Amino acid sequence: MTAAALEISSPVGVIAGGGAMPFAVAESLKARGLEPILFALKGVCDPAAAQRFRHHWIMVGQYGRAKKLFRQENCKNLVFIGTLVRPSLSEIRLDWSTLRIMGRVWSAYRGGDDHLLSGVGRIFEQDGFRLLGLKEAAPDLLMPEGCVTRKMPDQNATSDIARGRAVLQALGPYDVGQAAVVIDGHIVGVEGIEGTDELLMRIADLRARGRIRAPVGHGVLVKAPKSGQDLRFDLPTVGSRTAKGAIAAGLAGIAVIAGSTLVADPQGLIETADASGLFVTGLPS
Amino acid sequence: MTAAALEISSPVGVIAGGGAMPFAVAESLKARGLEPILFALKGVCDPAAAQRFRHHWIMVGQYGRAKKLFRQENCKNLVFIGTLVRPSLSEIRLDWSTLRIMGRVWSAYRGGDDHLLSGVGRIFEQDGFRLLGLKEAAPDLLMPEGCVTRKMPDQNATSDIARGRAVLQALGPYDVGQAAVVIDGHIVGVEGIEGTDELLMRIADLRARGRIRAPVGHGVLVKAPKSGQDLRFDLPTVGSRTAKGAIAAGLAGIAVIAGSTLVADPQGLIETADASGLFVTGLPS
Repeated sequence: MTAAALEISSPVGVIAGGGAMPFAVAESLKARGLEPILFALKGVCDPAAAQRFRHHWIMVGQYGRAKKLFRQENCKNLVFIGTLVRPSLSEIRLDWSTLRIMGRVWSAYRGGDDHLLSGVGRIFEQDGFRLLGLKEAAPDLLMPEGCVTRKMPDQNATSDIARGRAVLQALGPYDVGQAAVVIDGHIVGVEGIEGTDELLMRIADLRARGRIRAPVGHGVLVKAPKSGQDLRFDLPTVGSRTAKGAIAAGLAGIAVIAGSTLVADPQGLIETADASGLFVTGLPS
Repeated sequence: MTAAALEISSPVGVIAGGGAMPFAVAESLKARGLEPILFALKGVCDPAAAQRFRHHWIMVGQYGRAKKLFRQENCKNLVFIGTLVRPSLSEIRLDWSTLRIMGRVWSAYRGGDDHLLSGVGRIFEQDGFRLLGLKEAAPDLLMPEGCVTRKMPDQNATSDIARGRAVLQALGPYDVGQAAVVIDGHIVGVEGIEGTDELLMRIADLRARGRIRAPVGHGVLVKAPKSGQDLRFDLPTVGSRTAKGAIAAGLAGIAVIAGSTLVADPQGLIETADASGLFVTGLPS
């Protein structure tokens, strides 16, 4: 048990969005003797998987109800995890408690995704809850520093990684681009809102159409948090699906920032990568 | 006839890559009383369209032959225009003259597309040819400053344009991203090697799948030359196809840099845009 984990009082409220990560975080808490209680976001959190844990259903915009449930369950510590498609304003049903904080939420909403989440975080904290980062809530799900696969990046891949980091850093202030694909020094793709999986599909498609001529096994997917991104909420994520995508795109490997990248399924990621000679490496932040 | 055109001696050699632009440039030269002679790049230049002009076929890597033809036709002025897929080295058949300059070409090739073309340009100039920019060869094909459509950018579009310019400027040093799509302040897509048409198709697809929630008629395609791009060779291009793509993507308009953007078919672009209430505007550089 880490020092950080010792300071966390049980139970821990897991505000659960879409994808597999909320359940991985809940399991990680359990493994360290902390009881997870899911506050599952309706429409995004997987109902079948939520059944495995004590849970309540909440809705975006129903902050009054959520706050009451957090207190009822004695969850002083909360962690927000999972994907959340930016809701259309017309789909959000607001309760009174939310209406009162609407001005603050609205200005956060206008500022882009990162700011939306940070704004919501500040509101939680003003109400006496503590928002845990994943480094505290589930440190075992974060990418470690160094190469985790049998294959290691060669000199060509190392310089592609450096170029990818540089371009992501340049994009940082613009709330875009958690990922880029660099092949033999050329930046061939930059992630917009389509996400990493679709970026990799695009690279595979460009390769299939002969638009990328570099040999298979050249090129790197580089992922990094956006600068100014609130790492409590929105960490870059990799998993076996990312590895499969990188293999289909004919890349040499994947490089992510150690300590600031979630690994959805570490064993699956490494097995998938090793089976195809892909490297996966955690870069010092 | 402009002052710049008066300084150009006829005939002018048009080294013609793919797409419609080489023929538009040849027509523009003719309209100003200058005889165009096409040096059509085999495999990329359209053979049917090349028939309309005096022409010779040349191949990438056959510089000795090309140089001889330029001199034989008395083309002291050359303009390089059209798309050119980076050739695979194994496909290039080198002649002796090219082998002699191979070291220089190779180091240019390693430096990315822009540098490749600038490197080739320098070599031409060392052999006594003058490489014209499109501002000299075909000034009527360049986007003018200001809005060319009935629809004008509103305040929302104006701030999206500013954000798009900023993100393209940040990407400048990385030889990537001639275009970005910004919707209501959010950068939703950045162009990699897939090109503007495919970027716009991606945005249309994301909208169709509900991943973009902004109303139709919000958002701007912003195109700008890469910083450090040699504007003699590789100008951003827009045409009626770009307008169709922007309309399909549900955007409000297109903003490009005046004087540094080629318009493939000005009338087609404006008619297509006006028919759907799209704006097209040339920004001061």
